[in-house]
Amino acid sequence: MRDSLRSRFHFTPLPFTQVKVEDDFWAPRIAVNRERSLPAVYHQLKAGGRIDAFRLDWTPGTEPAPHIFWDSDVAKWVEGLSCDLALHPDPERAQLLGEVTSLIASAQQPDGYLNVHFTVVEPKGRWSNLRDAHELYCAGHLLEAALAHFRATGKRTLLEALLRYVGHIDSVFGREPGKKRGYCGHEEIELALLKLYRLTGDAAHLRLAQYFLEERGQEPNYFLREAAARGEAGPVRVPLDYYQAHLPIREHSEATGHAVRAMYLYTAMADLAREANDPALVAACGRLWESATLRRMYLTGGVGSSAHGERFTADYDLPNDTAYAETCAAIGLIFFAHRLLQRNCDGRYADVMERALYNGVLSGVSLDGERFFYENPLASNGSHHRQGWYNCACCPTNLVRLLPTVGGYAYSLSDGALAVHLYLQSEARLSLSDGLPLTVRQETRYPWEGSVRLTLTPAAPAEFTLRLRIPGWCRRYALAVNDTSVKARRQRGYACLTRTWQPGDAVTLDLAMPVESVEAHPGVRHDFGRLALQRGPLVYCLEDADHVVSVAQIALRPNAKLSPRFDPNLLGGVVMLEGVGQETDPARWEKALYLPRTRSRPRLTPLRAIPYCLWDNRAPGAMRVWLPRA
Amino acid sequence: MRDSLRSRFHFTPLPFTQVKVEDDFWAPRIAVNRERSLPAVYHQLKAGGRIDAFRLDWTPGTEPAPHIFWDSDVAKWVEGLSCDLALHPDPERAQLLGEVTSLIASAQQPDGYLNVHFTVVEPKGRWSNLRDAHELYCAGHLLEAALAHFRATGKRTLLEALLRYVGHIDSVFGREPGKKRGYCGHEEIELALLKLYRLTGDAAHLRLAQYFLEERGQEPNYFLREAAARGEAGPVRVPLDYYQAHLPIREHSEATGHAVRAMYLYTAMADLAREANDPALVAACGRLWESATLRRMYLTGGVGSSAHGERFTADYDLPNDTAYAETCAAIGLIFFAHRLLQRNCDGRYADVMERALYNGVLSGVSLDGERFFYENPLASNGSHHRQGWYNCACCPTNLVRLLPTVGGYAYSLSDGALAVHLYLQSEARLSLSDGLPLTVRQETRYPWEGSVRLTLTPAAPAEFTLRLRIPGWCRRYALAVNDTSVKARRQRGYACLTRTWQPGDAVTLDLAMPVESVEAHPGVRHDFGRLALQRGPLVYCLEDADHVVSVAQIALRPNAKLSPRFDPNLLGGVVMLEGVGQETDPARWEKALYLPRTRSRPRLTPLRAIPYCLWDNRAPGAMRVWLPRA
Repeated sequence: MRDSLRSRFHFTPLPFTQVKVEDDFWAPRIAVNRERSLPAVYHQLKAGGRIDAFRLDWTPGTEPAPHIFWDSDVAKWVEGLSCDLALHPDPERAQLLGEVTSLIASAQQPDGYLNVHFTVVEPKGRWSNLRDAHELYCAGHLLEAALAHFRATGKRTLLEALLRYVGHIDSVFGREPGKKRGYCGHEEIELALLKLYRLTGDAAHLRLAQYFLEERGQEPNYFLREAAARGEAGPVRVPLDYYQAHLPIREHSEATGHAVRAMYLYTAMADLAREANDPALVAACGRLWESATLRRMYLTGGVGSSAHGERFTADYDLPNDTAYAETCAAIGLIFFAHRLLQRNCDGRYADVMERALYNGVLSGVSLDGERFFYENPLASNGSHHRQGWYNCACCPTNLVRLLPTVGGYAYSLSDGALAVHLYLQSEARLSLSDGLPLTVRQETRYPWEGSVRLTLTPAAPAEFTLRLRIPGWCRRYALAVNDTSVKARRQRGYACLTRTWQPGDAVTLDLAMPVESVEAHPGVRHDFGRLALQRGPLVYCLEDADHVVSVAQIALRPNAKLSPRFDPNLLGGVVMLEGVGQETDPARWEKALYLPRTRSRPRLTPLRAIPYCLWDNRAPGAMRVWLPRA
Repeated sequence: MRDSLRSRFHFTPLPFTQVKVEDDFWAPRIAVNRERSLPAVYHQLKAGGRIDAFRLDWTPGTEPAPHIFWDSDVAKWVEGLSCDLALHPDPERAQLLGEVTSLIASAQQPDGYLNVHFTVVEPKGRWSNLRDAHELYCAGHLLEAALAHFRATGKRTLLEALLRYVGHIDSVFGREPGKKRGYCGHEEIELALLKLYRLTGDAAHLRLAQYFLEERGQEPNYFLREAAARGEAGPVRVPLDYYQAHLPIREHSEATGHAVRAMYLYTAMADLAREANDPALVAACGRLWESATLRRMYLTGGVGSSAHGERFTADYDLPNDTAYAETCAAIGLIFFAHRLLQRNCDGRYADVMERALYNGVLSGVSLDGERFFYENPLASNGSHHRQGWYNCACCPTNLVRLLPTVGGYAYSLSDGALAVHLYLQSEARLSLSDGLPLTVRQETRYPWEGSVRLTLTPAAPAEFTLRLRIPGWCRRYALAVNDTSVKARRQRGYACLTRTWQPGDAVTLDLAMPVESVEAHPGVRHDFGRLALQRGPLVYCLEDADHVVSVAQIALRPNAKLSPRFDPNLLGGVVMLEGVGQETDPARWEKALYLPRTRSRPRLTPLRAIPYCLWDNRAPGAMRVWLPRA
């Protein structure tokens, strides 16, 4: 086995296990994920029978029957607990993980097949409905779980089972005679196989991933042939672009269909583009990136604006109150951004990655770690709340596997360069390309303050380029080395300092972090004439909990000064924004539905904004991100 | 027969036949209605078989079968043509009208029953589904047609048939043993019977109207009993408030359900309230008025915001792009307002009447008179257009009967007073309460200009009070008698001048008519932070046809000066509003979905607004009434 990434790709992410996050923002959330979310999700999986389903003792007539995607829920929890265990060893949890992974492996069939639903509920249904049955999707999540479990514990129980399962899948699917020329309606297996290939270096794994990707959308369409073979009556219920199966992947140019599926596909495409060094695929990824992030993304990094089909719709169609913006889709956007970022370390990707991470993803989980958003709207009348669980539990399980790995999005390495993408108080231990150990210590109160002090401690003086991301939101910054101001070359959103670094060298980066009011592209009719508040990477929102008048009736004075103030007692300690907004005098409206502007008499009203990611942690009430101009 | 109105009610409207409209705004529309709309509607009714259906020669299996509400379409056209004929005699049309009314009368059954569908299609279905079958609704429209036909021509063919039909209905419905205790799911018969009563003075007609009104919503609910009797399976499909049948009428306090039905009911309630001089009913009308007009009405006078159920929803729920605001509902609101206005001549009612008439009703018909809106949204992406006809043709037929009668909304009389509600160049001939003839000539360019000169020519000097409406939109006015400035007592929105009027006395009223930007109640979230343009009674809108940049991307600078300018070549001659609005520089947005406000660089862009009632008469494109503040 080998790690092909560093040699083949320009940049390689530093694994999360090498970054010890010690800040006041993420570290408590990672701890809550460990102490509350992972146990809560386990409790739900256990109580709902999703774990015990792997015993294969379900009998027809018993309710609930193991659902087609239960395997993936358990797998994502296994992945999350594995990642967390890698950061924070715990013998008791290691044992539980051992038991669950053994149980999963025990469900494997003699031919290598491993899927609960199609073993006990529909044993004759295997591979007969790739479009809807999530079979390869579940396989992909089991594979990601196996890889995480192996990396965290060195144990091969689950990995060996999945290697056999992958072998079985390889024997079923492909272009060779006698094989099914299918692919999954919900992408996931592709990115999982590419992860596996990076571990094993086994060309068969790359080939299988490539097959699934390349076959997608080819004519004659597999889903249509498969539906006909099943004798499915009537017209096609769902258009092929819902599954991103309307065109071969190189011909895609618009982010389309079910947003989570799209993001997992694009992530795998980006992986394959680099493994295969394929310019046509790189170009397709570029088009899809621009479609998704320049025309179809919420300010929070949420994607997929419509609940109907959980999908992408049209350019600039970004309604706020009905925004779907599924947590999983924002997580998928982070995956896609992170892959593209490794190609040439372009800050555009890191900007979106950070936007989604700090806003539309983190909003997915409550401060107490026990309630989760599936949808992440940007406006609410007060009736949208996190829930403890969902029948379709993809979002909670995606969050518990993402949070332990946040540190893994902070750094990348290439020959002769270390890139810093995210700022967060932490200590990273890594080896430079020549093998020399290096410790990087970040001291910062980011995202509350914009000043960062990095202390570099190579084992010996070492020449390399330090690439420091200057976030897209930042318009003024200062840089110093050992307290001496320096000018740095700017390349694709990164300040680049090339020198021979001495142990203990300190770099300070001061990112000006004023409160900004932000506009959306005028094509976004839902936001036209409105402003949103942002400071640093954080999008802010107004909640009724902080206001006397409903936030649905507060306008923003464009030139109003809003002051950031850290309140250690608010929502675990946050920088809130304080100032005055505008409302109209309610007395004027007692007997009027419409009034001349000059008669409505605006008046000032206190305004307080909190980070969007923390909304709905207090009393229910209206919430707004985009406010009209006063 | 008698006309009870003047003696029993405080104010009596002057019939439209006594007001000769000679202005440049309404007169051409009335002429187009005569020359284009009435023939176009006739052509549709004829071509679609709706007129010939009265031959009763339909045989099962032939398509289309006469629909349950076809009778009403023909009836409303008969009413419209009758009213127009009363203004503008035309032997050829009188003959056509004679033929159609004879044909209708010929369809009457020996027992007096008169309904095509339930005579030829469902002969066993008579009165078995009052909730849905529109049977009494059709009877009401036939009755209104008969009254109009009689008033216009003196011919009794249709009126006699309808008197027999009313007698038959009276024998079927009521609280007496053996009668059905039902009422119609779509109100209309009630107001028609009250109109009939005002002509005949026959207490039986008043009693029947009163029965239908009072029985509505009583327990046990007739619609539920009737549905059970029909053996209708399953739960109730539609809530009772859709039919305004959830409560007895005196207990209603919110405008609810299907908006046209609600308006027709409230109109009849207002009629009955005055006939019966019933304070509880007056109070109910007052509550319903406030609910409808202070919390549930568009700026254009449109009501019923939801396409789902064509109905009222909740307070302040007034979405612009999905606004239903059915033309018929705005017409119904005019009826309701006009009835309440006669009670004590309160300008609040006239303000809403004028608002609906000049905006949300007139928008219903194209300038060429041949295309009609059913829905009247306040924002469009460019895909909403008038159509030549609808299967459910209530709106075109309602427009053709309203337009000839516009002059009838201008004046009311009471003992010792003449009230002027609407300003439009015209000549009215009337008799004062003592029988003295009076001619009132209005010279004005209203609604384009706010100055009005009234010349009063009584046959002899006469003392009475002239009540001149000071519209709610007007904040400054001047009044003169024979060119001498006078002060007038102000009462409920009217300037009152009591004196002995000499033949030829001239009153000039100068209403300041600046361009106003209007705000909506802050509870209307769809308009929050937005402004609309109004000048005089006219609501304005922006259309793409007048702009280089899409009007969906133009914001209004709150203090921008907009200049009214009459363009004789635009849309038949209109005062448009010209000025500059604000857009953002598109170059800034080529590679950005979100930008700090200070970077988006607004720039000025020419802005031109046209009266809302005239939108969609040119090239298709986006339209906006409410614009965000720049």
